[in-house]
Amino acid sequence: MTSTVADKVHAPLPFEASNDGALLINGISAASIAARHDTPVFAYDKSVISGTIASLRAALPKEIHLHYAVKANPFGPVVSLLANLVDGLDVASQGELELVRSLVGLEMPVSFAGPGKRSAELAAAIDLKCCVNLESIGEMHRFADIARQKGVRGLAAVRVNPPFDLRGSGMRMGGGAKPFGIDDTEVPALFAQWPSDCLDFQGFHIFTGSQSLSAQALGEAHANALQLALDLSEFAPNPPHTINMGGGLGVPYFPGDTPVDLSHVGQSLRDTIAARQSNIGQAKLILELGRYMVAEAGVYLTRVIDKKTSRGSTFLITDGGLHHQLAVSGNFGQVFRKNYPVAVARDYVAKGPSFERVTVVGCLCTPLDRLGDDMELPLADVGDVIAVMRCGAYGPTASPSAFLSHPACAEELV
Amino acid sequence: MTSTVADKVHAPLPFEASNDGALLINGISAASIAARHDTPVFAYDKSVISGTIASLRAALPKEIHLHYAVKANPFGPVVSLLANLVDGLDVASQGELELVRSLVGLEMPVSFAGPGKRSAELAAAIDLKCCVNLESIGEMHRFADIARQKGVRGLAAVRVNPPFDLRGSGMRMGGGAKPFGIDDTEVPALFAQWPSDCLDFQGFHIFTGSQSLSAQALGEAHANALQLALDLSEFAPNPPHTINMGGGLGVPYFPGDTPVDLSHVGQSLRDTIAARQSNIGQAKLILELGRYMVAEAGVYLTRVIDKKTSRGSTFLITDGGLHHQLAVSGNFGQVFRKNYPVAVARDYVAKGPSFERVTVVGCLCTPLDRLGDDMELPLADVGDVIAVMRCGAYGPTASPSAFLSHPACAEELV
Repeated sequence: MTSTVADKVHAPLPFEASNDGALLINGISAASIAARHDTPVFAYDKSVISGTIASLRAALPKEIHLHYAVKANPFGPVVSLLANLVDGLDVASQGELELVRSLVGLEMPVSFAGPGKRSAELAAAIDLKCCVNLESIGEMHRFADIARQKGVRGLAAVRVNPPFDLRGSGMRMGGGAKPFGIDDTEVPALFAQWPSDCLDFQGFHIFTGSQSLSAQALGEAHANALQLALDLSEFAPNPPHTINMGGGLGVPYFPGDTPVDLSHVGQSLRDTIAARQSNIGQAKLILELGRYMVAEAGVYLTRVIDKKTSRGSTFLITDGGLHHQLAVSGNFGQVFRKNYPVAVARDYVAKGPSFERVTVVGCLCTPLDRLGDDMELPLADVGDVIAVMRCGAYGPTASPSAFLSHPACAEELV
Repeated sequence: MTSTVADKVHAPLPFEASNDGALLINGISAASIAARHDTPVFAYDKSVISGTIASLRAALPKEIHLHYAVKANPFGPVVSLLANLVDGLDVASQGELELVRSLVGLEMPVSFAGPGKRSAELAAAIDLKCCVNLESIGEMHRFADIARQKGVRGLAAVRVNPPFDLRGSGMRMGGGAKPFGIDDTEVPALFAQWPSDCLDFQGFHIFTGSQSLSAQALGEAHANALQLALDLSEFAPNPPHTINMGGGLGVPYFPGDTPVDLSHVGQSLRDTIAARQSNIGQAKLILELGRYMVAEAGVYLTRVIDKKTSRGSTFLITDGGLHHQLAVSGNFGQVFRKNYPVAVARDYVAKGPSFERVTVVGCLCTPLDRLGDDMELPLADVGDVIAVMRCGAYGPTASPSAFLSHPACAEELV
């Protein structure tokens, strides 16, 4: 079977349409959401988020604890919703830590990863009962000094830079020389210096990569991470309470991408755990996911404010742009731009017969600002709402929101 | 003469050093600027900005009016400084327009370009005496309706999408199908519908590209732009008061880049103007520059908070990152990442003999967050201030400042 670029389509989306074909976000028309906020606005569908978590729970073995990586979408109502559905949260800064503690209180497990934690951030971790994933021997000593000064024991896990990575991942976080974590070969030396007077060893954090659509590669990475953690446990001051195997589950953003086969990922994890049950002991096994839990649920709604033809090509010019959704423009971690799914909200289940080839751009005065390049869309005109799909992760906070001093973008959990 | 990649060096920088080799920004030590703001901080050198404008004035013919494109750096003190040195300002949003009017009052010429202007923005342009660069016939009619409603005449120029572009430019803004401006072939039809009852025709805006280091290509683009404006003038309701030929002058960011030969650009413009003097009449000739006026003057100062070795490679981990300077990480309009100039502030004029190969990264938990990749730098350690050079344009406002919820970055005009 062969396929050409023209054959490739986007993976199915989780949204329904009204009787007349308009896009519904958790049963509410996208046009009415756009109208009540003015545009642009990010709408996140509660039912899609809870459905994603339910699918994960159904597919993964019962031993797996699910954590949400807040950086993927730190919008308060989204974090609060997910905190009720998952077993822990991971933060990447003092700002995220303070946010989640203000939303969920002090009981829920929270861990903090990041290669460059300031001393104030390490102090906040102690105050807010957060486990610090240590990224270097230097950071271990710095964290220990702060705990001693406060006279409070710190919770610390060891982030390991593994000798393998997640094959086919969009972003490689392990393997080779990396700023993240401590090389696996250096971990015994770290444990030999462990400051038992003030730090409690919690466990391991091993992150091999992200944005992989291959269930086989994910299964191998999870197995390798678990085995490495178990191998390193023999050097630790106590058996690990937690083993965070990373996440890595990708989102099928682009034409031809297919969703991760969750049942395959679940079966691999069952086999991996079964083969190592006696060594795992009481350790909690964690999968930490960010993008996968929220991307599918988010829709970026932006209104057409001009339509024009230039040398035979038709442009829909919207009031949105890369200042709210940089990744859609192809400028965040991608080498060559590809199209996210884009729809006309009024005509989501397109009835035809009128379609046209258009390029959808934002309002910014830069050629980088493309939301959809040369796409076949139902006829749209000034005033229509355009929906850019799979925008629930790394949207407003991962975009240059102050670029050209345009207004901030609204968000709503629907 | 041949050169290899290893031979390529960064173009000379405009900063001096103290007697002991430390980086000075307008005579102030970078370390003291870093200390008084905490890090990270963007420091902009007044004397470098005024020196850049003086060089432009010296090289360019006296007929050229210089405009500053605020989007390159909208930091208030920078805009105020430049407003005293140039002849006009260009804005790209209502936010920028309100900023500049609050800083410079209503007298200075201001123009507004951008493919997707909201109706509220067009109304603000009328209220704040701003010339709108019309980007489509639809926008012309929308602007005219707003002027009529207000009972005030609007100032309007025509942005033309030319049939040529700026050869070798980093970003092509003209030639081919574009969302910017009105195809040159459509301009006569636009003038045939000109709403003379409410819009005053001011002139032309022709932008062919940006970030070109070739004086020859710039000279050709300016000549082509001027000739096109003169050709189109015969269809206009009145002779143009202004002809904005764009800008396009690039900054030598990367190893092997050489600065624009300003005297060549100036001579080309003199020849271009001389050959067309009688047709130019009373029209003001404008060059609009953003990046070129400010990039060289800006230094991004960030402190080393960890230093570590992973599988033989050394990493300096700083408290800065792509959330403040996205372009340095290679994720804003570049296909492949190249290094900006980076220095150790304490050892700017490196005395040696100790250097090491390091990779300088930010504090973010993503492999995208690189400030300098595999560079030879003077020995540095935790606490040292790293200076990333040529950061005066498209810094904080063109970066995802809310990414991972880290604190905002300080800025100072020194």
